[in-house]
Amino acid sequence: MSAAQVRVLKIAVLGASGRLGRLIMAEIVRRPDMELVAGVVRHDSVMLGADLGELAGTSLTGIETSVSMRDAADAADLVIDVSAPQASAAFARQITERGGPPFVCGVTGLGEDDVAALKEAAASVPVLYARNFSLGAAVTRWLAGEAARLLPAEQFDLEIVETHHRRKADAPSGTALAIGEAAAEARGLDLSSQAIFERPRQGSARPVGAIGFSAVRGGGAIGEHSALFLGAFEELEIRHRANDRFIFARGALEAGKWLTAQAPGLYGIEDVLGLTS
Amino acid sequence: MSAAQVRVLKIAVLGASGRLGRLIMAEIVRRPDMELVAGVVRHDSVMLGADLGELAGTSLTGIETSVSMRDAADAADLVIDVSAPQASAAFARQITERGGPPFVCGVTGLGEDDVAALKEAAASVPVLYARNFSLGAAVTRWLAGEAARLLPAEQFDLEIVETHHRRKADAPSGTALAIGEAAAEARGLDLSSQAIFERPRQGSARPVGAIGFSAVRGGGAIGEHSALFLGAFEELEIRHRANDRFIFARGALEAGKWLTAQAPGLYGIEDVLGLTS
Amino acid sequence: MSAAQVRVLKIAVLGASGRLGRLIMAEIVRRPDMELVAGVVRHDSVMLGADLGELAGTSLTGIETSVSMRDAADAADLVIDVSAPQASAAFARQITERGGPPFVCGVTGLGEDDVAALKEAAASVPVLYARNFSLGAAVTRWLAGEAARLLPAEQFDLEIVETHHRRKADAPSGTALAIGEAAAEARGLDLSSQAIFERPRQGSARPVGAIGFSAVRGGGAIGEHSALFLGAFEELEIRHRANDRFIFARGALEAGKWLTAQAPGLYGIEDVLGLTS
Amino acid sequence: MSAAQVRVLKIAVLGASGRLGRLIMAEIVRRPDMELVAGVVRHDSVMLGADLGELAGTSLTGIETSVSMRDAADAADLVIDVSAPQASAAFARQITERGGPPFVCGVTGLGEDDVAALKEAAASVPVLYARNFSLGAAVTRWLAGEAARLLPAEQFDLEIVETHHRRKADAPSGTALAIGEAAAEARGLDLSSQAIFERPRQGSARPVGAIGFSAVRGGGAIGEHSALFLGAFEELEIRHRANDRFIFARGALEAGKWLTAQAPGLYGIEDVLGLTS
Repeated sequence: MSAAQVRVLKIAVLGASGRLGRLIMAEIVRRPDMELVAGVVRHDSVMLGADLGELAGTSLTGIETSVSMRDAADAADLVIDVSAPQASAAFARQITERGGPPFVCGVTGLGEDDVAALKEAAASVPVLYARNFSLGAAVTRWLAGEAARLLPAEQFDLEIVETHHRRKADAPSGTALAIGEAAAEARGLDLSSQAIFERPRQGSARPVGAIGFSAVRGGGAIGEHSALFLGAFEELEIRHRANDRFIFARGALEAGKWLTAQAPGLYGIEDVLGLTS
Repeated sequence: MSAAQVRVLKIAVLGASGRLGRLIMAEIVRRPDMELVAGVVRHDSVMLGADLGELAGTSLTGIETSVSMRDAADAADLVIDVSAPQASAAFARQITERGGPPFVCGVTGLGEDDVAALKEAAASVPVLYARNFSLGAAVTRWLAGEAARLLPAEQFDLEIVETHHRRKADAPSGTALAIGEAAAEARGLDLSSQAIFERPRQGSARPVGAIGFSAVRGGGAIGEHSALFLGAFEELEIRHRANDRFIFARGALEAGKWLTAQAPGLYGIEDVLGLTS
Repeated sequence: MSAAQVRVLKIAVLGASGRLGRLIMAEIVRRPDMELVAGVVRHDSVMLGADLGELAGTSLTGIETSVSMRDAADAADLVIDVSAPQASAAFARQITERGGPPFVCGVTGLGEDDVAALKEAAASVPVLYARNFSLGAAVTRWLAGEAARLLPAEQFDLEIVETHHRRKADAPSGTALAIGEAAAEARGLDLSSQAIFERPRQGSARPVGAIGFSAVRGGGAIGEHSALFLGAFEELEIRHRANDRFIFARGALEAGKWLTAQAPGLYGIEDVLGLTS
Repeated sequence: MSAAQVRVLKIAVLGASGRLGRLIMAEIVRRPDMELVAGVVRHDSVMLGADLGELAGTSLTGIETSVSMRDAADAADLVIDVSAPQASAAFARQITERGGPPFVCGVTGLGEDDVAALKEAAASVPVLYARNFSLGAAVTRWLAGEAARLLPAEQFDLEIVETHHRRKADAPSGTALAIGEAAAEARGLDLSSQAIFERPRQGSARPVGAIGFSAVRGGGAIGEHSALFLGAFEELEIRHRANDRFIFARGALEAGKWLTAQAPGLYGIEDVLGLTS
């Protein structure tokens, strides 16, 4: 094993007080190949000045949360950002100016300007942008696309069923839509014209090529997604279930580790997994 | 074995040209303990005069379809009616007049007057009325009610998911609603105020006690129903799947056989199964 | 609400350093209607003298682990024992002598003598003995028995499939066997002569009445159990999944709360749920 | 559409009295783009001389079963062979001599010599050899291989669960083994050393890389296969279910249609689907 491979990766986390930020920090602390060097929160956060271990639910780290993205970038080989759109765009601009370090952005709800800032940073720094860091969810999306390509739309109707906890207020989930997009693209269809989100009491027979979505809500389910290809005489299901939010933390770290070995550019989770054809 | 037990049961079928009627006749022909003695169709049916075996897809029986409910009743120990509401009510009145034979009504969409005619017949003849003859579906409905009673609504959210073939235009299925009714009753809730049939793109958290319905449509699925009790840390599913419409035919015949040993009265499929508490 | 109902229940935990003991203590600390008053460990435990909060992963409680079952019993309205067979029997004898308090025993692997000690205590004190405190698992077992009773063995073959994490070395799980026992009893069959644990490469057709067991092992699955009733044309599944070991902790506490209102006697989880017919 | 595409394909079936042969003939009769021109049975078959429609359960065709493979080959653009190993090899040699027509072999249990005869025929004629003609099963096998490649064996344990009807005496199914082979190959493992077919009452923790098989038997299940990738915090399932044996008939015909446009060579179902990478 070369020296480069055993090097401990120094990581800073932006959005250290959020649920995913805390999990990512806990995972970094747990791993021998990584070191937590900074955790950034908003300047009005009640957690400002807290030890990162308090947030992560681990033993104390001796490092306090701070508001300085600059200090975080200075200390780190890799920055993982799970904060919020505006902060993320501001950080992307800093990265552009200072030429690094590699930057994983897992912030949802970015606007066009925010994405533009990411792209600009990607011209000189490796940047990875993903809304779901779970390995299994990424593989599910890709497999569903492949299945949609191989199983003719005339013979196999596609239905996507997702289950989430009782507090999730939006439907269907972003991941369900992403699975639908992958399948529609594989079949040369446009999701927006094929998607069926509701089934009325008295409707009509299912159109060929339609992609139906069902949202189940209840209990504490972290997230289950199922792509059902229903034929006249057979059916094929691809189903993913997240049992712990740790997979999102672990996925972000795996993606970050991969990113540090890449050339400048804008990457997605598919690139990490070698799923781009 | 006593003589009574080996007696062959003579059965007449009303609605002999419908999908379920044909399946019931095929099943009767196949069974050694039953004999098909008449098949009634509408007087304007193109199948009038056809051999019952042609309709049933079996070898020829030597019996032609007829329009006479009276002749059918004369020839039979048991009448199974899977025709249509008006015919069914007319036959119920005949049964009342002639005092038999036992009468299984599996017609859907009966109006109040039709049901009143059934009740009147039941004063002097054993009558069974059911909208789904599948043993498994009846047990599923009952088990879902028991589970709803045992698992507190505050802890276990109930979601009902059903899957049917691509040509089914209504949603949710009648069986799904019946499962929901059984569960709501067990929890002392009113289904009409608790049912959730749609989940908007941006809604709100799930209310305690709500019963959600999801309808999946595609392929050739004959009918699958799942009652999901979703807790914060555990889940319980009761799922039924019909793989062949023969179960509806067989269920009707089992119910009919049971009915011939009963006193006059109006029965349901729960009575056949001993599910009434 | 009466005064009795709002009274805070003082609870002592035997086996405070085990996985389930820690979870139970954490749950007690979290609940407003309960108070953690003692945690007993073995006298050679490395955790002797530790604050109970350290074990529970909560904030500190100011109470240290101890070795005195007597002190624990003195301080508590209820004792929950998740220690080990010998300790459990010793404690049962103490309970017998001192006439209380109510005692929940969740220790697995008890020998005949140990159970005898429980029974003796139950002559004068309410005692509850259970090997699985999950509400859902208990309901699953009961529902599977009811389904086995309602669905004839000649028509519906029963298969039990269970999934557990990769470190579980025994198979099938105790809960799978308990489901099989409930179903066999409901069908008037003897599980030991009906159970099929292996399917050879070349075997024979499935005997009527057989109960097949399959054990799936992998990943971090906490425990999933499925009872499949497979008919020629339909199938019914009852499936339970534990997503968090907290359900065992919560189930133990609910059972304990129920127990404090009961007369002396030996109870099971079925009694708590009103499942004994 | 060109003239070649609308040409009706003349097909002869070897093994016309077997279950799959009958289904294939029924499907040919049903389709406008195909014509049934011959059905070959063994010379000692009780069905010798019967109309093909009697075997297929369709209306009469005017064509009797025969024993002449030569006449069948003369009359057909395509031969589908679902007979038995010896007959199959004999026919392959005839095909070699006469240089056609294209030949689909779906016979299981071929010996080395039989396969050699197929390969010899494939030097001058398009030949397709497959043991399972279901599109969904082929896609499932391929998807399972891809998932095995993308999800590391160290993180995702693979378990294969299959369900078949109560009369199936061998276990696990050939398709389950084929899924296991595809996954093992994708992970660079050898299935024979990794496969676990039994789980003893007291065993040991699951080895990394192992592939577990479970066989569920009961009812009338035509065939369900599930590949479960079980991780510590997430799981991914690929599941296929055959609801009607017609899919095997349809799959054979689709494969045959594809074959008639190919150059000489030996093909598999993967080639039909474009699954060879």
